[in-house]
Amino acid sequence: MKKFNKIAIIGVGLVGGSIGLAVKKKGLAKEVIGIVRRESSGEKALKFKTVDKVTLNIKEGIGGAELVIIATPVGTIIDIAKEVIKNAKNDMFLTDVGSTKEIIVKEIEKIAPSYIKFVGSHPMAGSEKSGVEYANGSLFDNAVCILTKTKNTDEKVFDAIKNFWEGLGCSLRVLSPRDHDNFIAFVSHLPHVAAVALTIAAHPDSLEYASTGFKDTTRIASSNPDLWQDIFQSNKDALSRSLYDYRMTLEGIERAIKENDTKALMEFLKKAKDIRDSIK
Amino acid sequence: MKKFNKIAIIGVGLVGGSIGLAVKKKGLAKEVIGIVRRESSGEKALKFKTVDKVTLNIKEGIGGAELVIIATPVGTIIDIAKEVIKNAKNDMFLTDVGSTKEIIVKEIEKIAPSYIKFVGSHPMAGSEKSGVEYANGSLFDNAVCILTKTKNTDEKVFDAIKNFWEGLGCSLRVLSPRDHDNFIAFVSHLPHVAAVALTIAAHPDSLEYASTGFKDTTRIASSNPDLWQDIFQSNKDALSRSLYDYRMTLEGIERAIKENDTKALMEFLKKAKDIRDSIK
Repeated sequence: MKKFNKIAIIGVGLVGGSIGLAVKKKGLAKEVIGIVRRESSGEKALKFKTVDKVTLNIKEGIGGAELVIIATPVGTIIDIAKEVIKNAKNDMFLTDVGSTKEIIVKEIEKIAPSYIKFVGSHPMAGSEKSGVEYANGSLFDNAVCILTKTKNTDEKVFDAIKNFWEGLGCSLRVLSPRDHDNFIAFVSHLPHVAAVALTIAAHPDSLEYASTGFKDTTRIASSNPDLWQDIFQSNKDALSRSLYDYRMTLEGIERAIKENDTKALMEFLKKAKDIRDSIK
Repeated sequence: MKKFNKIAIIGVGLVGGSIGLAVKKKGLAKEVIGIVRRESSGEKALKFKTVDKVTLNIKEGIGGAELVIIATPVGTIIDIAKEVIKNAKNDMFLTDVGSTKEIIVKEIEKIAPSYIKFVGSHPMAGSEKSGVEYANGSLFDNAVCILTKTKNTDEKVFDAIKNFWEGLGCSLRVLSPRDHDNFIAFVSHLPHVAAVALTIAAHPDSLEYASTGFKDTTRIASSNPDLWQDIFQSNKDALSRSLYDYRMTLEGIERAIKENDTKALMEFLKKAKDIRDSIK
C-alpha cells in the first residue's frame, strides 16, 4: 500500500473526518491536513483528532499534498476543484466524494491540466447524521466505493486512487459517470424522496403508532436538508426518470389493491420479496 | 397480574409463538395450548417450546381456556372466530392480533354471544421474518399494543385484555377500529407498499450498489407476501386514501426538483426532518 507524505482533505464533516481518521488508523499518510471554511470547523476537526492540522487557506493546505480529496457538499465541489487547480503548485492526485458524478466529473475533466490527476469517487458510506462529531475511522470498512471511468481516464491515475480507497477498507466498483448517476438514483436518491414523502404524508396523529417498519423506512428522512437538496438538484434528470418508474409501479400496486386483483398483488409482493431477499 | 389456568393460541407462527413464549416467561398462565392447522406446525411449535401442548382441534383446544387468542393471518380471523364461538362450551375472553381492525371487530362483535368476551388487539411487534422459528419471548417488551374500543365494549372485559398485554410487556393504546385502520395505514401499510414499489422499480443493475439507505428503506419488502396481500385487502379503503396522500406529496417533491424550486424543495426536506426527528 502506497504511503503518502501528505494528504489534504477539503471539508471535514462526517465523510471528510472519517477519511482522516481512517487514513491515520491505517497509516496511509505521514500527514493529513484538513481544509475548512470556518475556524470553528477547524477546531472541531482537531478536537475529534480527524486530521493533524487545519487551515482555512486552500493554497496553503494543498501545497506539497500528493493527494487532495474534496469532501464538501455536491453543489460546491466544482467550484472548489477550480480553486484547487488555480492554486496547485505541484502535481497531485485529486478526487471527490460527491454522491452524483456526471456533472462533476465532466466539469473537472474539462478544466484539469495534466498534472492534476483526477478520478471521481463515491464512497457509499454515510449516515443520516452529519458533522465531524459523527466521523468514524471504520466507516469505510467493507463499504462499496464507486470510481468513475471515462474516455479521459488514465489507468495509472485510476489505479492510484483505487489503491487509496482499498487501503481505507472499501470494496471497489467502476462505472461511467452516467451509469453511476442512473443507478444511484434508484438505490439512494429515490429512496430518499420516498422516505421524505412517507414522513410528510403520514397523518400527524398516526405517528405515535410508528413501529420499526415505519422507523426503518423513513430513517433517512432525518438527513441534512441542505446536503440532499444539493444532491437532488445535481442528479435531477436521473432522479426524475427513477421517480417516473416508481410512480408507475406504485400506481400498479394501487390498482391491484383497489380492484381486488389478488393475482397481480401477489405478483408484486413476491417479486419484491425475491429481489429484496437477494440483497445481502 | 391475573394468572390464567389455560390460554389457547390459535396459529403458532412468529406472533403466536412469541405470545406463548412470553406468557410462559412471565408466568401468566398455568398452561398454554397451541391450536394449529397442520401436524408439522404443531411439531415445530413444540420443538421451539412456544406452547405446552398442541392440537389440530379447535373444540378440544379452547375447552376450559379462559383466554383465547387468534394469531392467524388477517384474512382467516373472522372464520376462525366463528369456529371458536360455535365450539365454545364455557365463557372466555377472546382477542385477535390482526393488523387491521374495522372489519374484524365489526364481524366478531356481531356474532359473539355475551359469554364470549371479545376485544380486538393489535400488538405492534413483528418482523420481516415469519414462522415460529423466529418467535421471541421478548418481542412484546415495550412494544405498542393497540386495543380497540367500540360502543359495545364492556369495560371489565377491556381491562382484562389490557392487563394481559401489559403483563406481556406492552405499552397500551386505545383507538376505535376505524381510527386504528386509518392510522396504521399511514405508519405500516403505506410504508410497506412504498418499500415494495422501491424494490421493484430499482433498475436490476443498480442493486449491487445498494447501501444502508436502500436496505433500511426496503427491509420490509422481504415480508411474507401472503400475509401482506391479506392485510392490504383487509384495509383497502384506508390504504387507498393514504396512497392518494402519498402520491400527492411525491408529485409535489418531483415538481420542486424538476422546476429547480429550491425553496419548495428545502421546505419538504426540512419538514420531513422535523417530523422524523420527533419520532423516538
